Order: sequence, then structure tokens, then C-alpha cells
Amino acid sequence: MAETVTNNNMTTQQLYTTYTSLLQKAADLHSAAAVLEWDQETYMPPKGAEARGRQLATLASQAHDILTSEQLENTLKELSTRSDLDETQQANVRLSLKDLEKNKKLPSAFVEAMSKQTSECFNAWIAARKKNDYSLFAPSLKKMIALKQEQARLYGYTGHPYDALLDDYEPGATVAMLEGVFAKIKNELPGLLARIKAVPQVSNDCFHANFPRQQQWDFSIDVLKAMGYDMEAGRQDYAEHPFTTSFSSNDVRITTRVDEHNYASLLWSTIHEGGHALYEQGLPEAQYGLPLGAAASLGIHESQSRLWENCVGRGYSMWQHFYPVLQRYFPEQLNEVSVDTFFKAMNRVEPSLIRTEADEVTYHFHVMIRYEIEKGLMEGSVDPETLPQVWNSMYEKYLGVTPPDDVKGILQDVHWSHGSFGYFPTYSLGSFYAAQFFMQAHKAIPGLDELLAMGDMAPLLHWLREHIHRYGRQYTSEELCERVTGERLNTAYFMQYIADKHTKVYG
Amino acid sequence: MAETVTNNNMTTQQLYTTYTSLLQKAADLHSAAAVLEWDQETYMPPKGAEARGRQLATLASQAHDILTSEQLENTLKELSTRSDLDETQQANVRLSLKDLEKNKKLPSAFVEAMSKQTSECFNAWIAARKKNDYSLFAPSLKKMIALKQEQARLYGYTGHPYDALLDDYEPGATVAMLEGVFAKIKNELPGLLARIKAVPQVSNDCFHANFPRQQQWDFSIDVLKAMGYDMEAGRQDYAEHPFTTSFSSNDVRITTRVDEHNYASLLWSTIHEGGHALYEQGLPEAQYGLPLGAAASLGIHESQSRLWENCVGRGYSMWQHFYPVLQRYFPEQLNEVSVDTFFKAMNRVEPSLIRTEADEVTYHFHVMIRYEIEKGLMEGSVDPETLPQVWNSMYEKYLGVTPPDDVKGILQDVHWSHGSFGYFPTYSLGSFYAAQFFMQAHKAIPGLDELLAMGDMAPLLHWLREHIHRYGRQYTSEELCERVTGERLNTAYFMQYIADKHTKVYG
Repeated sequence: MAETVTNNNMTTQQLYTTYTSLLQKAADLHSAAAVLEWDQETYMPPKGAEARGRQLATLASQAHDILTSEQLENTLKELSTRSDLDETQQANVRLSLKDLEKNKKLPSAFVEAMSKQTSECFNAWIAARKKNDYSLFAPSLKKMIALKQEQARLYGYTGHPYDALLDDYEPGATVAMLEGVFAKIKNELPGLLARIKAVPQVSNDCFHANFPRQQQWDFSIDVLKAMGYDMEAGRQDYAEHPFTTSFSSNDVRITTRVDEHNYASLLWSTIHEGGHALYEQGLPEAQYGLPLGAAASLGIHESQSRLWENCVGRGYSMWQHFYPVLQRYFPEQLNEVSVDTFFKAMNRVEPSLIRTEADEVTYHFHVMIRYEIEKGLMEGSVDPETLPQVWNSMYEKYLGVTPPDDVKGILQDVHWSHGSFGYFPTYSLGSFYAAQFFMQAHKAIPGLDELLAMGDMAPLLHWLREHIHRYGRQYTSEELCERVTGERLNTAYFMQYIADKHTKVYG
Repeated sequence: MAETVTNNNMTTQQLYTTYTSLLQKAADLHSAAAVLEWDQETYMPPKGAEARGRQLATLASQAHDILTSEQLENTLKELSTRSDLDETQQANVRLSLKDLEKNKKLPSAFVEAMSKQTSECFNAWIAARKKNDYSLFAPSLKKMIALKQEQARLYGYTGHPYDALLDDYEPGATVAMLEGVFAKIKNELPGLLARIKAVPQVSNDCFHANFPRQQQWDFSIDVLKAMGYDMEAGRQDYAEHPFTTSFSSNDVRITTRVDEHNYASLLWSTIHEGGHALYEQGLPEAQYGLPLGAAASLGIHESQSRLWENCVGRGYSMWQHFYPVLQRYFPEQLNEVSVDTFFKAMNRVEPSLIRTEADEVTYHFHVMIRYEIEKGLMEGSVDPETLPQVWNSMYEKYLGVTPPDDVKGILQDVHWSHGSFGYFPTYSLGSFYAAQFFMQAHKAIPGLDELLAMGDMAPLLHWLREHIHRYGRQYTSEELCERVTGERLNTAYFMQYIADKHTKVYG
């Protein structure tokens, strides 16, 4: 209470400084945790894991204490009554209040239970994968689902309980919105897939030679530099699962993986993470730790990675410049392979079992299956006991493939064991936003394809920086989409993009 | 006050758990900072520096808040009245109370002023080095000296003001003790140096061929493994200035440097840091974050690095096994070089200007010069304005060399710019303790030289673990020395060790 009294006497600038220093202190702790996690995935010796886990827990709890402190709450409440904040400050205060009020809805007992359950559930998932047996995961997952239902209740919702969870990943997204989006995709994508299946398959044999890792690495660095990834403000390392992490917009790192017998493994992973990293490097430095210094949503983040990975990185234009460069790295492997063959190989469509290895067309069936299941689990219409059967029958229905076992089916993704319900849809939203943004970029940047064909990616990055990156969380995904493209998300752009591409590939 | 009332009602075990969880939380924050610093020196992209500085400051202040909290103070005070603590617990509580009381002697205003002055002084040192001009460093250094004098007053002392500062690095060390130690060295070392100068110099040409970095690296890993450094609980990386850092006894990392045209650069640096790392890996895991989980002192830490670097790594025995291994890595460079020639080269004695490049004999003159100057600055008998002249005349007197400029003279070490007055003596103490411990190890381990000559270093490490590492801070350096060797520090062992070695080298 003494705090509030003091707050009343403070000038708006003093209050705003108190607010930013609290948030930036929490951000420093989160950034430190991100460095520790980066290290854990890249260089940490194996025996370091146990102490690392405790150190991460301490950093998280210290940051949480700041973000739920009375001092922050009182400062924000007082700030929200002041009329002399500029537009940026207003947006930060508004969003921070929203975050705070959301955080406060979860009692510490619930946060603790969730944290314990996440750890238990992840271990159960690992054990179940090892034995290839969903039944070892089911009891833990059921408890997790109950906790997520409880979380939705605590957050509150007006429509579907799943809406409350979606907001953690994609503020503003709802089941109603996703139903509309996926309905169109579900209507149109099967037709495209059927047309592709009806013509002869293209070959991707050209990826399966021996590609020494150092040359793969060096070429990926060439591409990252061309994309405009600032190597003075980031770096690439190897990790088992590729990811992007940021410790400030001046230190944004990516990781990649390599397979010397499959060229497709490293490069598109690098470009994908590079796209995420360009977004993070483009966030406004002065807003470090504040809402306007953070990404708009996971969907928008994914739109940046997929725009670079798919629209650019699997487009024909880029390879007019880069394929000869790649051939110089791998003359023996690629001199006899034409750029057309290479382009077709990278865009080959084939229904498969594993989401992370899926092509641009079938990928969205993988996501829709997970979305349907998550929605059903949250509303109670899907029984967790029957998940493998539900999963398998949906794979048969949508993709015509049958998982031979749990590891290649229901146990393939880590997300549910982490309690990340509501995350999957952002992958598809990212692709759809990407296609819409890329179409808009073509309108805004004259000769974009010709520029890409000369290896000049700077105008595209500049456009993304100007229209998307620099706003941070100032707008929701849909507001941002409307500002950038003149309309809200419209999957027609994605359908157009994917149909055009596969006409080139399959005729 | 409410806290104290609560504490009275808590069982000793509850109190002890409160105490350990507070200290371990602070240790987690310090460990996180250590990871960030390690990253800063190894992999961080250049633009990451600014945000990293702020993140480190936040971690330090969060840890400081815990370590100076009323909760910790009340818990410790109550614990110190309890009679049912075991011996280990008693030692932890006693040392933590000492730390707390020492911390409390520095008001926050002083801590803040010191932190600012450290940053200013370090920048001034960098700028002065760039221009090779001490006068650019002097004003900042004078302020730093005034602060260190103030710090000594705040800590309090009965003998010399420098005693108060020494305690930060070498608890228990005093000017009175150091005067005794250095007096003997000052009496005896010049005679040894004169005898060496009177006979023909040995050659170290064999170090100056082309030694490809990868082979240097691989051999250094062979040696680290033989020393018993657990590569599952640590790793080696490159950094400009070699160092050891620890995030728990299960994650202790070292860095090294390489010069392809000077073999001496990498290997002994690796062995030195390896010695530090073995100590850290040998500290009791269960005491993480508590005094008994930390090193006894910098002098004891340095005794471990120097025992391995000098007593073992520049001893003849080890090379009977390892020189043939090294020759296999560098057949062209070393097949014509005998192990005797190699042994002499690594032990060549030659007065020089730079401390970090000095040999085992002349090294201690470098330290004594700094010790004399620090003592004089603290008691006010040395004028900071005249430091270059004081420095140069001491180098002429002790080593017969004259620094041609400030960078090779008074500006060579970073320590004073960090406010680290009282640190230098621990380097010499480390060498002296090392010789005494190594002599004792010979008595305790039958056939130690023969074991080393077979490449078997395990018995030596086992002995160090049993007699030194496992105790953490339980004993002061001198108590530990007495327990291990039966007497307090006695430089006769060092003089004996160094005389024996240089009889072998110079006849």
C-alpha cells in the first residue's frame, strides 16, 4: 500500500522508468536462462544437466517474482491512469497489464502443479518413446489434460475452452477463427494432393549423395549472409533439434543439424531458423524486455521462418543465383544435376507419417489432425485412452498412411508432454501468413523475383523490417496482417501460392 | 523481526534447509553469470556485448540481494545458537556468517561507487594501453586506490591496511606473513638466478617450428584425460585469455590459446587450467553453493594449477611417457629433438618483462614487485604519479631488465583496473604451496616419479582429492597446509624443488 502512495507522487516518467527497469530485469533473467538453454543444447557436457536444471528453475522463479510483484502491479495501474504517455508507452503499458492480469489468474499452487506435471509428463513421454508404447504415456498425459482444462477455466473464455489456451501462443486466435481457416484448407488441399498423386512422382535422388558437412555448413553461411542475417549479432551452431534463441536483438543465435547423406537436412533448416532470427534481429533494440520489443505471436514468428524457408528457399528465383554457387561446393555430386531437377526435388510432395519431415502441401494435414485432437481433448469429446486409434484413423483419412507404431504416430511430438496445447495451429497459420505476406511483397517490391534471381535479398528483408519486425507486439497478428496486406488472413493466397508452385513441379 | 520470531520456532533442520536453499539460489545466479561470462569469452558475437553487460549486472544484484537479506542473516544467527549441527553444518554456518558480516561492512553506496569505478578504471586502462601512456590511466587508478583504502578501513584491520584486502583472496594471509615468505625468497632466489646466468643458456628453438593447431589441441586433450580431467563434466575451448570456470563440480570448463609458431603457448596453459579444473571437479557436489563446496583460497587454487603445470608438466618424469606420444603428433618437428633438449627448453630461465611469460624462477620477482607496490600504495608510501618510475627501477633492480614503454611495464596487468589489490601474492603462494604439496605427495605415494613416467597420474590426483579438494573451505590455506604436510608454508620446499630442477637443466 505504501507503494501506491509513493506512486501517486511520482511523475509519469519516473513511473515509466520503474516499470521498464522491472521488466528489463525480468528480461535479463529470461535472457540468462536462454543462454543456459542454448549452452545445454550445444556445448554443455552431459554431467552438467542436473545442476543446469536447478539453475534454470531459479532464474525462472526470480523472473516470475518480479513479473508478479506488487511493485509492478501498482506501477502499471498508476501508469494506466496517466494521460501523458506517448503511443509506444501506452502500448507497452496496456500489453504489460494484460500479461500481468493473465499471470495473476494462475494461483502459485497451480503453477507449481503444472511445473511438476510438465517434468513428469516429459519423462513419461521419453520412457514411452523408448518402449514404443503409448500406454506408458497415457496416465501422465491424462493428468496434463486435466490441468490444461483447469488452466482454461482459470483464464476464462467466452467461446471454446481451447480459445483460452490458444491465447498463450496466438493472441486473438479462437476456435471460431481456426475453424474458418482450416475449413477452406480442408476443402481445397485434398484436390491438389489428388492431382499431384495422379501424375508421375518427381525424384529427389539428387539429395542422397555424400555431401561433406563442412561444405554444407559453408554454403549455409553464404545463404544466411545473403538473407541479411547479421553474423556480428548472431551465430550458427549444431544441435540435435534446430532452434532459434535470442538474448537481445544484438545476439540472436540459430542451430542446425547435418546429415552427410541427405542434403535436404541442413540447408532448409538453416534458412527456416534464419527467418526466425531475422525477425528477432529486427525487433527494436530500445524496447528490450518490453512488449514492443517482443514478437507479435508464434504465428507471425513462423510466418517469417516459412516465408524464407518455403516461399524464398524453395522458390525457383533464389536458385537461379544460388544453384551455381552450390554446384561449386559440390561439383561431383551436382554438376550433372540441373537446377530444374534440384528445384523439383526440394518441392516433392508425398504423404508421410512424420510432421517435421512433411512437404508444404501435406504438412497442414498433420497440423489439422493435432488441432482436431487438441480441441476434442479440451472439450472432452476425445478420450485420451483412445488417442492412438483416433490418430491413426485420421492419418488414414487425411493422408492415406497408417502409422506402424506409436513412435511414428501419436508419440512423435514433444509438445503435449510440455503442456503446449494450442501451439500446433501456429505452424499452419505461419505458412498461411507467409504466403499472404510474400504475395504482398511482390506487389510492393518491383522485380522481386529478378532481385532474388540475382541473389539480392536485401529489398525483401528491408520490406519485412519496415512492415512487420519493427512493431514487436504493437499489433495482434490479425491487425498486423491487415496493416501489411490490407486484409485479414485469407488462405486463398496460400492456395494460390501452393498451386502455382506445384504446377511448376508436377505440370 | 517477524522473521526472527518464526526462526525460533523452527527446528534446526528446517533452519538449515532455509539457509542452504538461500545460498544455493544465490549460487545458481552466480553459476548462470559464469555461463554468460564463459560464453562472452568463447562464442558470443561482438554486438552481444552491451546487453550481456546489463544481464550480468542484473544477475549479480539479484544474488547480492539474497546474500545480504535479513532472512539469511536471521537464519544464520539463529543457526549459530543451535547445538545440534553436525561438523560440516557448523563449518558452513560459521563461514557464511563470516562472509555475511564482511559483506555488511560495505554500505551499498560504497559497493555502487566501487562498481562504477571498476568500470571506469577498466576502460581507462584499455585506453591507456592503446596509447601506451600511463598518464591516461593514473587519474582513474588514483580514485581506485582511494576506494581500496576506504574498503580496508571499512573492513577494519589490526596490522597493515593491506591485510584487510588480502583476506578477500587469501583468508588469513597478512603482510607480516608475506614479509616472512618473500624475505626468504628475496634472499635466496637471486643467488640461483646468478648461478644460472653464469653458465651457457639452454635453447628453446625446438618450440619454434610450425605446429598445426589441431594436433596441438588433440595432444592437450590426451594430457587432460591422463590428468583425470572428466571430459563428461567439462570441456576445453579457445579464448584469448585462458581461464577456468565452474557451474557446479559436474560442469567445469577450461579455455586455452594456441600459437602455431610457438608450441609453448597452448600446452602448459592447458595443463595449468586443467589443474584448476581438477580442484573444481573434486569439490564436494553435495556442498554446491555452500562454503564447503568452494575452494579454500586463491593461493590453494593456484597451488593446484601450478603443481600440475610446473611440478608435473615441466618435470622430467611425465615426459618419459608423453614425449614419444608428442613426437608421434609432430614427427617432422620433433623426431630429431631429444627429450632432454625438450625438457631443458621448457625450463629455460631468462629474466623478462612480462609476468605471464616468465619462467618458474624469475616469475616471483614479478610478483614481489607488484606486492611491494600494492603495499606502498595502500599505506601511502608510494605515490601513484610516480608508478612507472617505481616499476621500472624495481625491474632493473630485481631482474636487470628495463621496460621500453608502459605497455610492457606498468600497464601490463589488468588486476588494478579491476580493483584487485591483494591478488598477486596468491600467484607466488600457489607456487610455494605447490612445491610443498608435491614434496609431500612424493613421500605419500611410493614410486610417484615412476608412475608419472608410465603416464599414470591417477594416484597423484587421488591423493590431491583426498587431502585437499574434498575439504572446500573447511580449513584456511595454512590449516590445510599443516594438515597435508605437517607444517605451515615453508618456502624451503620451493627453493629445494627449483634448485633440483635447475641443476638438471643448467648443470
